[in-house]
Amino acid sequence: MKIKPNLNNSSLTRKIFGFDESLKKKKIDVIEERPVTLFLNDQEIVTMMTINDYPEYLALGYLLNQNMIGTRTKVESVEYHPDLSTIVVRTNKITDYEEKLKKKTITSGCAQGTVYGNLMENFKKLRFKNNGKIKKSWIYDLSKKINLTPSLYLKAGAIHGCVLCQRNNPIVYMEDVGRHNAIDKIAGYMKANKISSSNKIFYTTGRLTSEMVVKSVQMRIPIVISRSGFTAWGVELARKANLTLIGRAKGKKFFVLSGEKRVE
Amino acid sequence: MKIKPNLNNSSLTRKIFGFDESLKKKKIDVIEERPVTLFLNDQEIVTMMTINDYPEYLALGYLLNQNMIGTRTKVESVEYHPDLSTIVVRTNKITDYEEKLKKKTITSGCAQGTVYGNLMENFKKLRFKNNGKIKKSWIYDLSKKINLTPSLYLKAGAIHGCVLCQRNNPIVYMEDVGRHNAIDKIAGYMKANKISSSNKIFYTTGRLTSEMVVKSVQMRIPIVISRSGFTAWGVELARKANLTLIGRAKGKKFFVLSGEKRVE
Repeated sequence: MKIKPNLNNSSLTRKIFGFDESLKKKKIDVIEERPVTLFLNDQEIVTMMTINDYPEYLALGYLLNQNMIGTRTKVESVEYHPDLSTIVVRTNKITDYEEKLKKKTITSGCAQGTVYGNLMENFKKLRFKNNGKIKKSWIYDLSKKINLTPSLYLKAGAIHGCVLCQRNNPIVYMEDVGRHNAIDKIAGYMKANKISSSNKIFYTTGRLTSEMVVKSVQMRIPIVISRSGFTAWGVELARKANLTLIGRAKGKKFFVLSGEKRVE
Repeated sequence: MKIKPNLNNSSLTRKIFGFDESLKKKKIDVIEERPVTLFLNDQEIVTMMTINDYPEYLALGYLLNQNMIGTRTKVESVEYHPDLSTIVVRTNKITDYEEKLKKKTITSGCAQGTVYGNLMENFKKLRFKNNGKIKKSWIYDLSKKINLTPSLYLKAGAIHGCVLCQRNNPIVYMEDVGRHNAIDKIAGYMKANKISSSNKIFYTTGRLTSEMVVKSVQMRIPIVISRSGFTAWGVELARKANLTLIGRAKGKKFFVLSGEKRVE
């Protein structure tokens, strides 16, 4: 694995005193969660809650997955300022997104609505070809390897994991308080390290909602596996994009609701 | 229970054909998830993903919990337009929030950041007195009653639940694709039906993150129980507000990380 949960990073969890069911005093490990405010050039974008292990990847991946910067946008710098809890992504020129946003916010004030509209417009243009495949044995291998990897989840709970995989091998295993952050950090890692996506598989501990489907399609990863369940709109979008959606993957069980042709 | 999961509402789930691990064709129940765009007067606020069982409560509760309207704001009407997937909340006069937002968006374009800032400013002013109590037996009763209630979660998975309780009785049991929606729907229900909050208890299937703590404090409910875990910032905020935080409540086990004085 290129990146795995970093249990040696003591800033990601905290020991906190509390009381168990006998009201006996006891210490437990609890996940950290911090606000970080993201800027694109001089434009404030959003305040994210994160464990903050990879703020640079998170910032990049967020902008990519929200379609605020394109895969071809030249990023000049990503500056993290821990003292200000701020991260600034600078591009070589003002992005489309900033122009759209400025126009829109004057009339409606709604950055999030604008982003959502643009995202869905872009989504409609993306459809996977029939590339990519997954063997049943890979599904079992991946689940097993990922579940047995020491993680913040096993240490402290209350955290989601997303894993970038190739064949039956987990490559990048990210965790965060929100699964959207974990997936965004992987997107940022992929852009920063120029990783190709079409031969990859995504494993997530979270549910296969429309948000996860849109992000996977945005990242051009054709296969997604989850130990958790589906939402109907997630399935609908996955079918439109010809994305393979494998849910409820536990032990020897799983269920495919889209793109079953890739399963061998 | 005044409101419980409505398993007879066939618009909340959908039967979808897929393939199990033997690649045998099979139908399963999947949760619906729909986008609804919220307006406050003529101001577009956000597009929410929801199962859409109580759009009016969701809209009201969202605005309350984001501190965009106050508990004393007079709401003239809440209009849901199914054909446009739009919900409009009208107040008798322009709210503070809209003024703040207009000023801010022109300089930064960031509605979400503004809201977050206002929310945290307001949070600092709120601190529970030592009112409210909870018996150990209530924790066990509530967990048991809630887990045994037929729910969309048991039917289709991939959904979160939040339950408003009094003593050892669940009163309002809401489910939604995001736990923030489920809690917002309860807030909307409480405002619409003028339910008092200080003698209530909140049960959630989701994690005790900062977001959940801020919402509970905003709603003036002094005790929160979850079967899931904590985040450190959630605990910190709960301690500042003197909120009782009971997590990892499963079987006869639980763990208290804040406001243990209310546990008897």
